[in-house]
Amino acid sequence: MRIVLQGELGSFHHLAAGHWYKNDNEYLAAESFAEVFEVLAAGQADQAVVAIENSSFGSINEVYDLLSKYGYPTIGELNERIHQQLIALPGTKLSDITEVVSHPVALAQCANFLKRRLPNAERVEYHDTAAAVEYVKNTGNPKFAAIGSSSAAETAELQILEANIENDRQNYTRFLIVSPGGKAPADANKASLVLQTSHGVGALHQALGCFANEGISLTKLQSRPLTGKIWKYQFYVDVEAAGQKLHHAIGQLQKQKCKVKVLGEYRAAVIEHEI
Amino acid sequence: MRIVLQGELGSFHHLAAGHWYKNDNEYLAAESFAEVFEVLAAGQADQAVVAIENSSFGSINEVYDLLSKYGYPTIGELNERIHQQLIALPGTKLSDITEVVSHPVALAQCANFLKRRLPNAERVEYHDTAAAVEYVKNTGNPKFAAIGSSSAAETAELQILEANIENDRQNYTRFLIVSPGGKAPADANKASLVLQTSHGVGALHQALGCFANEGISLTKLQSRPLTGKIWKYQFYVDVEAAGQKLHHAIGQLQKQKCKVKVLGEYRAAVIEHEI
Repeated sequence: MRIVLQGELGSFHHLAAGHWYKNDNEYLAAESFAEVFEVLAAGQADQAVVAIENSSFGSINEVYDLLSKYGYPTIGELNERIHQQLIALPGTKLSDITEVVSHPVALAQCANFLKRRLPNAERVEYHDTAAAVEYVKNTGNPKFAAIGSSSAAETAELQILEANIENDRQNYTRFLIVSPGGKAPADANKASLVLQTSHGVGALHQALGCFANEGISLTKLQSRPLTGKIWKYQFYVDVEAAGQKLHHAIGQLQKQKCKVKVLGEYRAAVIEHEI
Repeated sequence: MRIVLQGELGSFHHLAAGHWYKNDNEYLAAESFAEVFEVLAAGQADQAVVAIENSSFGSINEVYDLLSKYGYPTIGELNERIHQQLIALPGTKLSDITEVVSHPVALAQCANFLKRRLPNAERVEYHDTAAAVEYVKNTGNPKFAAIGSSSAAETAELQILEANIENDRQNYTRFLIVSPGGKAPADANKASLVLQTSHGVGALHQALGCFANEGISLTKLQSRPLTGKIWKYQFYVDVEAAGQKLHHAIGQLQKQKCKVKVLGEYRAAVIEHEI
């Protein structure tokens, strides 16, 4: 299969893909989440691995918007422990560093370390952590450091100057497996939906009641602006349900005149409990 | 009064402040939202104006996190129509531009224009739109353009190369007025809360029922990660209520063992309806 990733070999997307797929695949590196979906739309890849949320940074809004725009089914989810490394040319000292290059989400995950230990170094945003490591290697500049995975450091044969510099010791990222034309696996235990409620008093309360009535736990609720409508929202809801139970809840939502789109029913390796 | 803003004179924060305050004030420019709150904490300013949400970009998550961290009351809200201009040195042509500099939220608001008309120009993130305009002026480089307000173009005596380039014709930003030790105005009609629910099935549904029971409309619900707890969230809720009615709802929430923090009761110039 051809798998498109936001990031190059050694990126966290690539590491996640290595944990998800059992067989060897051809990996295509995209420079942005928008490009990942364009590659799928052009039929140049069969599936994509996309980060949707980090446990300390929060939701990656752009991916929510792309999932809704393209409507490609989510067929799987995985939860990855993320360790961030400060990576530089061999022989570099921390006090030499004047510029730290990485993906904005990785920079945000290490904000505490950077503030404490490198308060004066410039933060430079790059499209990918692994590409940032390669960039530092290619400049040959001992004043530059990148933030990325230990795998990226190893591939580039650079030095890990400081290990595990993420803010939160429990730093996890949730990744989704997206497949145009993909089908729900028989053992699906989770689903992602997009919901538009009516706008009366208690509308969202009533909509969430459709899940509560079926004994379905919510694991995530993310609001995003409704395009073209000022201060109106749609809600991305992840629920611990699939199949008949889910479709009962959806039937109730539709009776309430809610618009519902199922983004996918899938198997989550680790199920979290009600948010 | 001393007012701290994320941005310089001619920034959208500065324009919003001009619409909110009736009297002349001393304005302090901060380079980040974090710095705005640090300036308030140090007692170097009396109030701040901070953008919380744009109608097409969505929530500014960092500001939600800072409001919760510092707990300074919100005492007002205003809604500003935002027009973005492509600004360059006089005599520049669109086809000359190789680099577009602006605040990441402004770049995102103009993504469609940039994709269509400047697909090959590099997007460079800068801490402030008005500062980006000044930067383009100072480089003297006719290949550079900034995205910012017409007021910033006028101050810098630069040319508006393309006017009103925002994606969405209805492009609005909501700004909050934050004041350490501030009090709710007598005519408050809106409030912002942070809510932590219990984690059983239907917990969020039940919590939102406390507002529905009182006939209180929600105008916004934003989830953000709970620090140190993986895949657990707190909810920022804006409601069309203040005073006794609000406190009845809060009493019900507390009976449900919800943790509730009021971030402010304030007067909203234009009240929106249920989300």
